[in-house]
This record gives sequence, C-alpha cells and structure tokens, in this order.
Amino acid sequence: MSQPFAEITADEHDRRAALHGPLTAAVRRLVEASISTGADCETIRRAQRALEEIADTLEQQRHDDPRTMRHAETGRPISWADPVIGLRNPIAPPLTVEHTESGRCWAEFTLGAPYEGPPGRVHGGICALVLDHILGEVASEGLRKPRFTGTLTLKYLRGTPLGPLRAEAWVDRTEGIKAFARGQILDAEGVTVEAEGIFIMPAWAREAG
Amino acid sequence: MSQPFAEITADEHDRRAALHGPLTAAVRRLVEASISTGADCETIRRAQRALEEIADTLEQQRHDDPRTMRHAETGRPISWADPVIGLRNPIAPPLTVEHTESGRCWAEFTLGAPYEGPPGRVHGGICALVLDHILGEVASEGLRKPRFTGTLTLKYLRGTPLGPLRAEAWVDRTEGIKAFARGQILDAEGVTVEAEGIFIMPAWAREAG
Repeated sequence: MSQPFAEITADEHDRRAALHGPLTAAVRRLVEASISTGADCETIRRAQRALEEIADTLEQQRHDDPRTMRHAETGRPISWADPVIGLRNPIAPPLTVEHTESGRCWAEFTLGAPYEGPPGRVHGGICALVLDHILGEVASEGLRKPRFTGTLTLKYLRGTPLGPLRAEAWVDRTEGIKAFARGQILDAEGVTVEAEGIFIMPAWAREAG
Repeated sequence: MSQPFAEITADEHDRRAALHGPLTAAVRRLVEASISTGADCETIRRAQRALEEIADTLEQQRHDDPRTMRHAETGRPISWADPVIGLRNPIAPPLTVEHTESGRCWAEFTLGAPYEGPPGRVHGGICALVLDHILGEVASEGLRKPRFTGTLTLKYLRGTPLGPLRAEAWVDRTEGIKAFARGQILDAEGVTVEAEGIFIMPAWAREAG
C-alpha cells in the first residue's frame, strides 16, 4: 500500500520535466499578463484568438498517464498536475517541498499578483491552500501514505506580503490512524500564519495496510 | 471608510468584462491543456514559443488601474484580479458570489482538473481557498467593509468530487470588531466540508470609523 504508483525512471522524469516545465512556465506568464496587461482592445482580441488556436492544438491529443507516478531513484511520488506542487499545473506557484531527515517539510517560494487578496498581500485562502498541502505532505510521509485532511485550523497573525516566502510543517504526534501536523508560513520578519491539522488514513488504506 | 474604491460605470464595467473575460477564458483553457495534453514534443515546443510571444506582446503595456473598483449601479466592489472571483485571473474558477437579502452568500461553480488533489477529488487546500473567500465576503458585507481572516477552521466530512459544487456562508454573530462566520461546500449529496472563521476589522479601519 505504501507505493501504489506507476514507476517513472529518472531519465524519463527529467525528459518530461524539460518538455513540460517551459510550457507551463509560459502559461504562468500568461496568467500574470491577463491580470496586468494594459494592451489595447485589438491586441487583446488578437491574443485571445491566438491562444484559442494553441489550446485547440494542445487539446487534440490527451495523455492517459497516471496522475501520480513514483520516481524510480528517489522513491518520491511525482504529482504532475497538483495545484500546489504540480510541474504541469500553471495554477501552482509551484512549490518544491523539501523533506529533512528528521521528517520535517519545508519550501521556499515566491507569490506574485495571481495570488493577491488585499493590496500587496497574499489572499488568506492561498495561505490556507499552501498550508493544507505542506501539512498533508508531512503527515503522509511525503505523499507516500494516503492521509486525507480531517480538520485544519489556521491562525492569521498578520498579513502575508507578496514576494519570497517560506512554509514549514512537522508532525506533532500520531495516534492510530490520525497524524497531528503543525506548520507555518514565514516572511523575512517571521511567522505570518500558523496551522494545525489532523490527517486521517482512509478506510481502504487501513484494510489494505 | 465603507466605500474606499474608485467608481466604474456599468457600461465601462461591461465593456471591460466583454474584452477581458474571453482572454482569461482562453488562458484557463491553456491551464487545463497544460495538464492534459498528450501532444508530441515538437507541437509542445512550438506552442510554448507561440505562448511566449503572446506574453511578450501583452506584457508591453501594463495598466495602472486600481485593483478593486466599485460598480456605480450595484455599489458592489469588483475585484478583477482576485484568485477566487477575479474575472481577469485565470487561476480563479471564477466564483460569482450571490448575496441574499438576509445577508447570506452563495455560489455555484464547477471545479475541474486544475483543482484536483486525490484522484477525482478537489484538493483539500482548494476547498479551504473557496471557503476562506466566501466566509470573508459574508463577514465583510460583500467586501464593502475591510475584514481580514483571524482564524479559520475547516472540517472535512468526506472527499469533495470534481464537478458542479455549491458554497454557502453566513454570519453567526458579530462582537465588536469581530464577525463570526460559518459556511460549507456541498455536492449533490450534501455537505462535504464545513468551515467557521473569525474575521477582524483592521486597526486602520477602526480609526477611520
């Protein structure tokens, strides 16, 4: 049960990352440009039609690869489409979550205009999205074990500025099928949001376990 | 303090929505296509270069409009770039939040592949993003009054399926500078996630009264 994913070789992973990373990065630029552009009507309409044509082309063939694969060398799951870490999801910043030997997780990342709530600050719900994800990663031992969010509590100490940020998470304790995780988002001045969550092993994993 | 935003006429709002809505929709298609495409390497590289050229064009001119405007007819704030409701933000599904006369908020929306966490289910953090937003809207009387998230607690009753969903929120009570809001996400079978949050009026708004 701990490794239910199709394996991908290191070479094949790197080949796909090199192909899809730049495509996704180009779409991320367009996400920002949609928000910030001051181009005239004609330029915007021309851009829109050109983007639709490119979408037509890309949509002609759909892959049927599994959603998550296991990296043959590192053993880590690769979630290509995840909205927080997915290399192929332009919604994702994306976070690269590091795992320390002591079992903690951390990520350093930058959030810009698409993630803004109050002026100059990260939308509170985006902080929740990042924290749910990193607490889930640490509670599931790097997504190796299925653990779904049971409860999540967020405490917003102050506004989180757009720009470079850090997220951290660790497991406080485990009790049977429950893992109690904690974490936080920090800017250069310290913690902006604290989180704690209970992550639960689903019934099917318990039976298979 | 209750209406600090620049006004936009109904006509100008509709003109901008008609111009930028289709551009943003085209970028949303590309977000999905980035995840799902099975096109060959040459097609993907060509698409990437074409997208970069379009981004170059759109980035040449940046607008300096205020981030949020007030609709002259409805009096409602328009948050063009918001990651949940923003008409110009391709990350946003986007939600159209309705306000009832009794002060409740609700939205019906559809979440697809870009918002997926576990297979076929909405990422827990995306549920948190939606709920933080709609609780914040109801607590701030439709974003008319500045109220920032203090705490937010989410209880995940079961997985939220991708597809058509509904979110609802209401204010339980207010105490001085604090509004206590509650809400939920529902699929056709009922509630999947419950939320409660405390939303706080910032110091500058208190002083400005």
